[in-house]
Order: sequence, then C-alpha cells, then structure tokens
Amino acid sequence: MANSMPAVVKSEAKAGVEIREVPLPSIGPTDVLVKVKVASICGTDLHIYNWDPWAQGRITPPLIPGHEFCGHVAAVGNEVTAVKEGDFVSAEMHVACGKCMQCRTGLGHICQHVKILGVDSNGAFAGYVAIPESNIWKLDETIPHDYASILDPLGNAVHTALSGDLAAKSVAITGCGPIGLFAIAVARACGAAQVIAIEVNEYRRNIARQMKADLVLDPATQDVRSIVHERTGGYGVDVLLEMAGHKDAVKLGFDILRTGGRVSLLGIPSRPLEIDLAKDIIFKGATVLGINGRKMYETWYQMTALLKSGKLDLHPVITNRLPLTDFSKGMDMLNSGKASKILLYTEGNGSF
Amino acid sequence: MANSMPAVVKSEAKAGVEIREVPLPSIGPTDVLVKVKVASICGTDLHIYNWDPWAQGRITPPLIPGHEFCGHVAAVGNEVTAVKEGDFVSAEMHVACGKCMQCRTGLGHICQHVKILGVDSNGAFAGYVAIPESNIWKLDETIPHDYASILDPLGNAVHTALSGDLAAKSVAITGCGPIGLFAIAVARACGAAQVIAIEVNEYRRNIARQMKADLVLDPATQDVRSIVHERTGGYGVDVLLEMAGHKDAVKLGFDILRTGGRVSLLGIPSRPLEIDLAKDIIFKGATVLGINGRKMYETWYQMTALLKSGKLDLHPVITNRLPLTDFSKGMDMLNSGKASKILLYTEGNGSF
Amino acid sequence: MANSMPAVVKSEAKAGVEIREVPLPSIGPTDVLVKVKVASICGTDLHIYNWDPWAQGRITPPLIPGHEFCGHVAAVGNEVTAVKEGDFVSAEMHVACGKCMQCRTGLGHICQHVKILGVDSNGAFAGYVAIPESNIWKLDETIPHDYASILDPLGNAVHTALSGDLAAKSVAITGCGPIGLFAIAVARACGAAQVIAIEVNEYRRNIARQMKADLVLDPATQDVRSIVHERTGGYGVDVLLEMAGHKDAVKLGFDILRTGGRVSLLGIPSRPLEIDLAKDIIFKGATVLGINGRKMYETWYQMTALLKSGKLDLHPVITNRLPLTDFSKGMDMLNSGKASKILLYTEGNGSF
Amino acid sequence: MANSMPAVVKSEAKAGVEIREVPLPSIGPTDVLVKVKVASICGTDLHIYNWDPWAQGRITPPLIPGHEFCGHVAAVGNEVTAVKEGDFVSAEMHVACGKCMQCRTGLGHICQHVKILGVDSNGAFAGYVAIPESNIWKLDETIPHDYASILDPLGNAVHTALSGDLAAKSVAITGCGPIGLFAIAVARACGAAQVIAIEVNEYRRNIARQMKADLVLDPATQDVRSIVHERTGGYGVDVLLEMAGHKDAVKLGFDILRTGGRVSLLGIPSRPLEIDLAKDIIFKGATVLGINGRKMYETWYQMTALLKSGKLDLHPVITNRLPLTDFSKGMDMLNSGKASKILLYTEGNGSF
Repeated sequence: MANSMPAVVKSEAKAGVEIREVPLPSIGPTDVLVKVKVASICGTDLHIYNWDPWAQGRITPPLIPGHEFCGHVAAVGNEVTAVKEGDFVSAEMHVACGKCMQCRTGLGHICQHVKILGVDSNGAFAGYVAIPESNIWKLDETIPHDYASILDPLGNAVHTALSGDLAAKSVAITGCGPIGLFAIAVARACGAAQVIAIEVNEYRRNIARQMKADLVLDPATQDVRSIVHERTGGYGVDVLLEMAGHKDAVKLGFDILRTGGRVSLLGIPSRPLEIDLAKDIIFKGATVLGINGRKMYETWYQMTALLKSGKLDLHPVITNRLPLTDFSKGMDMLNSGKASKILLYTEGNGSF
Repeated sequence: MANSMPAVVKSEAKAGVEIREVPLPSIGPTDVLVKVKVASICGTDLHIYNWDPWAQGRITPPLIPGHEFCGHVAAVGNEVTAVKEGDFVSAEMHVACGKCMQCRTGLGHICQHVKILGVDSNGAFAGYVAIPESNIWKLDETIPHDYASILDPLGNAVHTALSGDLAAKSVAITGCGPIGLFAIAVARACGAAQVIAIEVNEYRRNIARQMKADLVLDPATQDVRSIVHERTGGYGVDVLLEMAGHKDAVKLGFDILRTGGRVSLLGIPSRPLEIDLAKDIIFKGATVLGINGRKMYETWYQMTALLKSGKLDLHPVITNRLPLTDFSKGMDMLNSGKASKILLYTEGNGSF
Repeated sequence: MANSMPAVVKSEAKAGVEIREVPLPSIGPTDVLVKVKVASICGTDLHIYNWDPWAQGRITPPLIPGHEFCGHVAAVGNEVTAVKEGDFVSAEMHVACGKCMQCRTGLGHICQHVKILGVDSNGAFAGYVAIPESNIWKLDETIPHDYASILDPLGNAVHTALSGDLAAKSVAITGCGPIGLFAIAVARACGAAQVIAIEVNEYRRNIARQMKADLVLDPATQDVRSIVHERTGGYGVDVLLEMAGHKDAVKLGFDILRTGGRVSLLGIPSRPLEIDLAKDIIFKGATVLGINGRKMYETWYQMTALLKSGKLDLHPVITNRLPLTDFSKGMDMLNSGKASKILLYTEGNGSF
Repeated sequence: MANSMPAVVKSEAKAGVEIREVPLPSIGPTDVLVKVKVASICGTDLHIYNWDPWAQGRITPPLIPGHEFCGHVAAVGNEVTAVKEGDFVSAEMHVACGKCMQCRTGLGHICQHVKILGVDSNGAFAGYVAIPESNIWKLDETIPHDYASILDPLGNAVHTALSGDLAAKSVAITGCGPIGLFAIAVARACGAAQVIAIEVNEYRRNIARQMKADLVLDPATQDVRSIVHERTGGYGVDVLLEMAGHKDAVKLGFDILRTGGRVSLLGIPSRPLEIDLAKDIIFKGATVLGINGRKMYETWYQMTALLKSGKLDLHPVITNRLPLTDFSKGMDMLNSGKASKILLYTEGNGSF
C-alpha cells in the first residue's frame, strides 16, 4: 500500500477545493480502510465547494468531502470480523452514537449525535477512506460498481418511498434531482400503479422520462392540479414523495394529495414555509412523515435486494463519469444544471 | 307523542337564535326519531350563534343546530333493525356518503361528501332529532346520561389520542378546551407515562389540574421548552396532541417534540401558518397525522369500552347544566371564557 | 329483456348439476340486475358439484352456484345510484351484514353474518344475477373481460400478498392453484425481490414458471429447505403466502421462514394440524395472519389499480374457456387436475 | 473490592447446585462489573436446578445461573461511557451478536446468535456479575430495588402486552405465572377495558385477584367460553396474551378470541400442538404474534417509563424474599407451586 494518496481537500474557508497528495488515513481496531474505486457527487458536496452559508456554518477545513462511494477493503483493524481484505464494500456515512434513545430503539438514522463522514470528518473523495466496522456494507459482487457508488442517495429514495405502502397506489414525486429520479425507479419496482414526476427543469424532466415515470409534468407550464385530478379519478394521488424542498413544490404536492393520503418529506426547504394545516393535513386526514438518511440498516437490505433482483434501472441518472482529479469540472457541470449524478473514478478516466 | 317541540332555531343570517315551537322532524324508512334528553354545546355552535365569517360561509338558515346529544328512541322507520323504541342512544352526526373511496375503505370520517347534522341540516337542540339508522349509536344503560351527551367531543379526543401509541409515552397536549381536557383523561387511562397540559387560559388550566394532568403549564409565563426538556430526560415528549389550532401552540408543540415523535393535529388554525419543515419534521423524523371527527365506528367502540370500564372521569369538564331554553345564557358563558362543556336539558333545569 | 335465462342449477342433494331455463331473478329497490358475460369456476364450485361433505353441510338445493363473474348492468332498483344500465361490472359476492362490530370497523370481510351469493343464495352461473348495490364493483372498460371475471380469486391473492410488506422481500408461495398463481404475479408486481413457488403438481408448476416465479420447486423431489437456505443468504424467506392448506405445505412453509418473518395463511386445511409454536412462531418472532376473502373494498381498489396499470399478466392461469352450457365438462377437467382457471361464457363458446 | 464472592454454582450435570466462594468475574474494556443487590428466580433457573431434559441439552456446567437482577456498578472497563461506578443498574441478559440481519434491523431480541448470561455463561446469582456495556440498563434511583430486580420478566410481559393495541380492548391472559401476573398490571395500566385472567392453579388465581384482574377464571371448574361470551357482548376478547404454553390454554385462548382479534404467544409449549388454522386463524382473520424476550431496548424504555409513573403495582407477585444462600429453599418453594416471584438478597435476609 502506498503511503500517500490523492484527495480532494477543502483546505480553506472559501469557495473551491485543492486536489493534492495526503497521507493515508489511519485506522483503529474497529475500523476498516477502503481503497476507493468510485465516489459520486452529492448536492451537499456542491454546497461545500461553493462555500455557501450552510457550509460556512457546518464545515471546518481542512476536510476531505465525499460520502457516496464504493471500493475494496485494503486493511482491517484487529477486532473487525464483518469484512476482510479484498471485500467489495460501500458504507453508511452517518455514524450514529449507538447510545441515545433513538439509537437504542432502532432509530439510528435520526441519532442526535450523528457524525457524517465527508462532512464532519474526512470522507471518500480520495484514494482511501477509513470507516468504522459498524457502518461498512459488504456488497454482493453481482452489484455493478457504478450502482455501488450511489447507495447513499438511492437509500434516501428507498427510505422515502418505502416509508409507507406503495403497492397499487398512485404516487407523485415533486423534484427530480438524483434522489427524485431514483424514487421513480423504486416506486415503479415496488408496485406503484402510476408514478407522476413533477419538475420545473427540462433537463431533469428528460431523465424522468427515461426513468419511465408514467407522467412527467412541468408545473411552470402545465395545470398539474387538473391533470392529476383527471388521472386519479378526481381523488388525487395516494402518496406524495416530496424531494424538491421548495415551497411551491410543497404547496402543489399537498394540493394534489388525496384525502387520507401519505406525504413523505425528504427535500429540505431552506427556510420555514406556510402550510394550510386545516385544508392540507387535518381535514384531509393526511399522514406526513419526515424522512432523514437511510434506516440503519433496513434500507440497506432493501436496496441490496432490489438491486440484486435487477428491478432497478438507474443508468439514466448517471450522466457523467470523470477521473477524481476532475472534481472541479464536475462541480461546474452541476452548477450549470446540466448534469445529474456524476461519478468520480480514482483510477482511469471513467470512460469504460 | 306531541305534534310540536321546542327548538333552538337559527332563523336569520345574523347573530343570535330564537327558541320556539316547531313541528317534529319526519322520519323515512331508515331513520330513527330520538327524544333528546341532553344536548351539549360545542364551539361550532358558538360560531353559528355569533354568526362569524365561518358560519356565514357554511350555514343556511333556518337551522336547528346541535350535534352532541343523547336521548331515547321515540320511533323508528320500518326498515330499522339496529334499535327499537325506548333504547338509549347517541349518534355520530357526520353522515358519510357511503359510496366514495374513503367510505368504501374504512375512512368514512374523511368522506368528502359528508353532511353534518346540526350544521348542514337540523340537529339536536330540540325536543326531538331525526337520525339515519347507520349513524345511531346504541348505549349501554350503565353509561351516565351526561357522558352520553358528550360522545362527539370525547370521540375527537379518543380519535386523536389513539391515532398512535400512548402506552408508556410522555404526552403533551396543547390547548385545553373540552377536547383537550378529555384527552388528558384518555391519555392517562391508556397508559401515558406523563401528561403535560399546556394552556394560556387560567380557567382552563384549573380544570386541567382537576383532570389530573401530571404537569399543567402556562406558556405565557413559564419556560415550557426547558421544563419539558428537564421532565423528559432532555429528549422532548414522545407524543403531541395539538388541540389549540393556534400558531404559537403549534410552534411550541413541535419545539418540544422529541426526535422520532408523533404529532396528531386536531385544532383548526384559522389560517395557514409557518412550519419549519426541515427542523420540525424532516430532520426529526416526525410523524404528523391530521385528525378529523371520529373513526366510524371504531372510535365509538373505543369510547364506549373506556366509559363502561370506568376509566374516564370527565366531570370536571362539565361546568354548567342549563335548561335548553337557556341556550343564549350558555352562549354568553362561553363567550366570557368562563365555562367549558355546558349541558342543556330538554326537561327540568339540569340541576339535579 | 327475456323472461327466462339459462342457469346451472344444483337441483338436488347429490353430485352433479342441471343446466336449464329458469326465471330471471327479481331485484329490490337497492339491487342491481347484471347480465352475466363471463363466469369462472372456483374450487368451491367443484365441492358443490361433487357434493362432498363440506357441500352437504353448507348447501341447500336448489341453488344456482357461481361467485366469480363480470357482465353489464341490465336493470337497477329505484334507489340505486352507484351504477346505471350498461355499466360494466363485477361484484364482491360476500354480502356483509353491515351492522356487527366487524362491519362497523372496516372489517366487513370477516363479518360473522356474511351471506355468500352462489353459496348461500343464487349466484352467477346463469344469464343474469342480482346483486345488492353495496356489492357492485364498477369496472373501467379498459380492464379485459377475462380478467374482470376473476376478480374474486385475484382479490384473494392481492389481499393475502398485500397483508404485509412485499417490497424488496423474498417471498415463498406454497400451493399453486389459481390463487397461488395469481399471487406470483402480484408479488412480482409489488416489488418482491424473489418469488419462490412451491407445488407438488407438475401441471401447476408449469404454469408457475409461465407466471415468472424466480424459482419453482417440487417438494416431492427437491430439498426445498436447503435450496431456500442457499437462495436467501441462510436466513429463509421474509414472507410466506400459504395457499395450499395442506399440512405438509404449512410445515415446510414455517421451516423456510426467516426469524422475524411474516406468514399469511389463506389455504384452508381440512382438519386441525400440528404446529410447533415454540420453534415456528415464538422463538422466531413470527407474525401469522389469517386471511379471508377480500377487504371491502380496499382490495378491490388495489386490484383495479394494478390491472389498469398493466402490471399483472394473468393469462397463463386461464387455461380453458367454455360455453356456460359445458359446465360439467369444466368440472371434469378440474377433477382431472389438468386445468387451472376455467372461464364460462354465457354467449358464444369462449373461443374468441 | 473483595477477591472472591459467594455464588450459586451448577457444578455438575445433575440436579441441585452448590453455594460456594468463587473468584470475581474479570471484565474487558467494554464490560461493566456490577455488585448484585437482588437477583430473582425464573422458571428457567428451576429447569437448571432440577436438571430436566431441556437443561441437560442446553447447560454446560460449571455455570452460575441467574438472569434477573439489579445492583450497583463496581467497576467499568476503560472504554465504557454509559455508566460509572456507583450507578444503579439492571441489564438485558440476552447478548445479541449485533451483526446479523435481525440485529441490524432493530430485531436484536430475535438474534439467532444470542448468548444468554446465566444460561450460556455466568449470571447473577452471585456477589458480582460482568455485563457488556451494550446491555447495561441504567436505572433511575426512584425505581424500587425489588422492581429493579424483576425487569427481565416484567419486560416479557410488557413486550407481549404492547406488541399490539391494548387501549379500550378486552384482554384475556391465559396462564398466571409471574409474567402473566405482571401482564395483568401492564394491561390495566395501558387502557385495557377489561382484563380476564385464566389459570387452573388456585394459588396463582389468588394473586391474579390481588393484581386486580377484572375477572379471574378457573377453566377446570368454570365455563370460560360462555362467561367470556357474555362479558364481551358475544364477540370474544379483542386480545389474547398466551402465557401458559399449555395446549389446553392455547385451545381455550383461540376459542374465546373474537373475529379479527390479536394473539400474542409467549408461553413455550413443550411440544408441537394441534391448531385448527381454518377456524381459529384464517376465517377469524386473526393476527398471531410470536414474542421472545424483550425488544432491545424499546421494551426497557417502556417499562422504565411505566415504573417511574407509578402505574404498576407489582408487589402481590413478589411472594418471597430470601438470602442468596437460601437458593435451594427457593427452589423447593417453586417446586411446591406455592410461590410466585422469589427475590434473593446478596446481603441481609431480605426481610426489611
């Protein structure tokens, strides 16, 4: 093993990153060192790169970002039994405390003392990453490495979609970033009777069509309310998966929800917004669920099973593959709005 | 049976009511005529009496209001089999259509074509009231007649409280009108580990204490957030029953909810309000339920069982008993804020 | 409309039936008269035809059997509003009382006073059948008439499969009669990660393969326990749908269930059987659900949505189409074990 | 701290135990050493003492049994943060592997690699016991030490009772050993509308009465079926908590269960038994749940909350208090059937 590795480093409290050689991370007795094969870019990484107000409040440089990846185990601490050198793995990057009430009652995904690798400490945009054994997810070799690198956002989609029944239901998805797009595939695979994708951005709507949403609507130019009304026998959709985090999307989503429907909220609004509790929730007898992260580790079992069964075609979402050293180029693409999920390869240029 | 009966009549589109003799209601083959014994006053009746904007938009005079009552069956239509003359009854006054998706899937309480007796057609502030057989609720004679007259709001409390688990949980109730007060009793009876009642009105807080809430807090003068924090090991309450419908109560309620908690919303805000979806619902992994009416008829079975078992002491909420002819006096009491649940007796003056 | 119609009549308390002209059924004010287009044969009809002990104890001749069908509304009683003449319909043939606790709490499918059309009174193996409005199910014209005639057993499959989560789960189905075969399609459509069909009869296993079960096993010749063990990472299946009602199938099913799994029992054993509660249920932390009929009417909404979405290919199960007058020929086919679902056509010979 | 401690030791593969001085258990970096204050006797300990076939198959001497206890932390390993010296604690004695699917999805109570302290390795009938930090349960000092020593069986009762809704329901409990008796208190505290205890042993029925079951029935001399029928409006009980593990109790329990009811099975039958799946589960639409151990650690939070709230009076179940050195005397009492829960005190004679 080399002594140093290339890494994307947020060195200073300002926009941009450096790509440079850094020492390999050290591991303790219960840690796993993973040689990163592919790491993919999340919107969070863009916030960090752009050094927006959220990043300024949360990130302490220097930091290696990156929390979506796959790779092979390079070394294990001496108490590790779950994996061995050479195993193909990904990881849950939310490291829960394990000791609070939430952690001790199966709700580790909402642990209040969570630390996120790639946000609170070094992550996966590097040659190697160190992961606690508890968070390693061993992968079946049959799972393609590009899918293996996007389990974090796929897990968001699976968690959101499967937070209630989907089978035989009509499902609207507001917001078609990568997670919303993945949710189209998950909802289809899990028996949604129809999937209606709602998105203002034409580039994203095109991908939504490739993901085989039954209906792809543009709220800027189409009368979504009446179209959904007509397509649902006048009732509205049974399920809303809200993945935009924008007030207009939230409002529209509640408007098209049927009485007695379920809303799962994943998109993060940047500020408080107005809700008509009486009309949208109370008289409607709605169920509204806040969704955070991935259930540890039920979501991981679910997505592994779905991927192994071949039920998910996620390729349209993977729009670009770059060498890790082209990180800033990937950021530019995302800032331009003309990319969805970008994969970064630590070796080669991703063009195979 | 007499040919006429006394009734409270909203005769004209303005504040106030008339008390006058009117003909008995006629009944069809599937209806039940009930001789009213006790009818109680709901906040909705006050809206109608005061002729506020809600009432102006919803009510078409002439109307006999009143949707909380008990009495004895005086006559039945010729297809009725559920009850017979002399039976002691109350009724669900939301008459669901029976034919929409909600009605056909056990969600009649959120039927979109519901008609409410006492709001959309004549109700129970009268000597007699006509009820469809489907909505009649036959009562065990062991249930006291004063409790029998308040099953509608008690049902709201039971529906809200039992819309999720209560056993061994800490429960906050925001808003101590009659339904919030009933909810204290229900939560206590159903295993809540502690019940925290939150109310700005001193008169109501006094009743909350009589209902044996473990803690009664005044948000105007007490630091509710830190008190709840301390009383819940720093986690916050497991369950919030929101019964105030006021933006400050909603905000406070979400603030004191623990991560992973449940919110059941019953109180109706008069307008849209701001919610911090990210902080209050999404990162918290909260479950938010809209609650309307009473489940038909699961809630009725539940409250009957609780009452028969003697687990609910509701007497502190019943603050006044008047003859039906003193209806306007009851309205004045409610307008003054110095009354909670007022019972109206069709015979005698209620002072026994 | 004609004055008489052809009908399959169980005239006497012995094996066999008569095909003869009988008067049209009369309808009351809340009934619907349906001109039958297709009726299909259930195992129950075979019991009635063969006059086995169950039939001897339950059936009172004369009776027109038949409880799976579709057709068009020929006439409606004067209080009927749900459908009108010419509408394409099927019906739930379990007529619940509407007044017991189960009926009043959304559990009409386990009403204890249920009457089954085609068993307790005249059914659908005839030119016309009379149905209470409450039980009529109006169909979208886009649903093929052959699928429309098998909604009763498809509903059993949907009810059983969707009585718990299926998404991303491994599912075993023991017994591949028509309902078990339908359940393969439902489980696949609703996200089962793998569907393992287990059946001793080669004819049925062949259809199970056409239904695209991931694995079709013969317990008489294959080591089902070790195969399932290997295919589920050593855990066993997440879900068992038991549709054989045979003691060996029940035993095998529990053996291959994973710890923490769900069992939904639909197959009716002919007598009590031994269960190792400690090993199979208690230490396993299993959930065992008894399934009866179809949920009224949630199951009907679910199957309509699945059929409209085109997610179910049921054609391999429909093995034969005959004119209604060949009823006895259909019975012979079923008795030979060389048929699955047989459709009977009231007009023409079914060969279109 | 002393170098040796008194302990109950199963030294040899035969009936009986020895009481002798043994070395203190050693602890690793993640273990906690607890000075035992009270340990209580479970039926499992009686099996071990009597050296019955189950014990012969499971236990490898030498072993210190005992898995119900409370005490104070005497020392902690250097990685332990959850508790510190002097803390009042009990512990979950099922040590789950933490790595299997069940453990990783919140189902540690049915971990297939579980090791039980006091069964598979040394337990709490001794001056000190070593416990992994993950399994320590820190107790509020307000919880009485006698209740603190019986959290294991109380947890079985809480887990069983709260495995479904209890509020406003009628509940039957078959079998009134300590866990059944505790379940009476839990069901009452959590809103059961009536609790019907069924037990053949008069000594136990007397305690059931002290636990304030609404009805205590002797199936040997009373017509339980007709009494329950009468007390439940002809429907049967909503919930059955089966805690006898005897075939007659299981049969009776299913007989008195209402259509649509819930059965939670905790009692372990010694061999397979006959169940009429058709009548008792399928046509009844019953839900049957296998219950094992205590949910880790939801059950512990629940029982702590119930105890802190003062909702459980468990004293009638605690029939005897002895010094630890009188262990064999306790065994004799249990073998005679004239004791329920026996507490053993490591210091003093328990008579305070």
